[in-house]
Amino acid sequence: MGTSAHTVKAFDQDLDQLRASIAQMGGLAEDAIAESMRALMQRDIEAANRVIENDKKIDALEAVVERDAVQLIALRAPMADDLREVVAALKIAGVVERIGDYAKNIAKRVHVIEHSASIEPLSLLPEMARIVGEMVHNVLDAFAARNSKIAVMVCERDRAVDDFYNSIFRTLLTFMMENPQNIGAATHLLFIAKNLERMGDHATNVAEMVYFAATGEQMGERTKGESPLDPVDD
Amino acid sequence: MGTSAHTVKAFDQDLDQLRASIAQMGGLAEDAIAESMRALMQRDIEAANRVIENDKKIDALEAVVERDAVQLIALRAPMADDLREVVAALKIAGVVERIGDYAKNIAKRVHVIEHSASIEPLSLLPEMARIVGEMVHNVLDAFAARNSKIAVMVCERDRAVDDFYNSIFRTLLTFMMENPQNIGAATHLLFIAKNLERMGDHATNVAEMVYFAATGEQMGERTKGESPLDPVDD
Repeated sequence: MGTSAHTVKAFDQDLDQLRASIAQMGGLAEDAIAESMRALMQRDIEAANRVIENDKKIDALEAVVERDAVQLIALRAPMADDLREVVAALKIAGVVERIGDYAKNIAKRVHVIEHSASIEPLSLLPEMARIVGEMVHNVLDAFAARNSKIAVMVCERDRAVDDFYNSIFRTLLTFMMENPQNIGAATHLLFIAKNLERMGDHATNVAEMVYFAATGEQMGERTKGESPLDPVDD
Repeated sequence: MGTSAHTVKAFDQDLDQLRASIAQMGGLAEDAIAESMRALMQRDIEAANRVIENDKKIDALEAVVERDAVQLIALRAPMADDLREVVAALKIAGVVERIGDYAKNIAKRVHVIEHSASIEPLSLLPEMARIVGEMVHNVLDAFAARNSKIAVMVCERDRAVDDFYNSIFRTLLTFMMENPQNIGAATHLLFIAKNLERMGDHATNVAEMVYFAATGEQMGERTKGESPLDPVDD
């Protein structure tokens, strides 16, 4: 075929540029998770506002990834596997953008629960957020290194996140029943826990894409990112 | 340029095929919203199971859209605006797939609240769902017809959805405070309302993409899809 080594190298450089932008998005999303949780724990409105403001950077980077991906396709006309890699990069950028939105949503709730009484189940949230932040970090490492083993590990960690979610859900329900006057604040914590649980699902979805790109096979059904049913009927 | 009328026509036919698959996804998502709500109102477990099962069809169609889009790009090497249209189609398919997931999530909750006492705020949900279903229908019409006016109308309707959400949120909180024994079931309804609200946001996001594709301009900030803060602090 007419593809010269020169063309191949140019494509790889462009793809690396795409990957670098996505890594940058991932770093910002990771920071947003940690900072939104810190703002929540310390009722730090200014920190929460910074998270909300910084989400615009993630959105802007997604637009850059999209623009660069379109240019790369138009300029290099990649075929088959290469094209699929560019499309995967586009999709992953979209997922990271959504993870950033969830962190922003958590930060927004800091404003509303600022003056609420201290709530016991709050103490489980930072640990849950720490695991989710690690999943986001690791899955983007897996993406950068095309490493299917790390991708499988990320999926496995999602079970811990689901366990945290179920535990927080039960605790909050009990808390609400015992403290009806704090139902409003507890509801916000419920949504925050749900946001973290969804971030874990999204990291798992990216892990599945990375696994597929690296191995050509779908990851087993059991590890797939899927919301657990909230365990209220016991 | 060397682009023959023949090539252009082939591209348009391929793009029409993509659009047809997305329209089919949209029809299934619309059905899923209506059916999950009917199953919820009538505590119809079998109908809920059908919604959960049918979501696989939406997922499969998204995979078809992705495969066809990759083939189209590889085969026709579309440039500039044409390429952007294909990328937009890919993104829109992703959003419709997520709307289907939200409907599936509602259907899953039918199992858990089946035997709960009847809950007053439940009566607002079907009307909220009806508007969301219409938004999904209309935004895919707007996409098919490249109609920016319909896209703007869809964004405007999202305010009604947010109003419904806020109203249901307040009502459920009051209900929980007055009936602590039903907090579990009420929490599920809260998540269902949130799922519908998110579907409205996603339809709005698609409307923004359609608007941009049709006019080359971003829709004003005010109409953008964004989760409302739950109004608990009053």
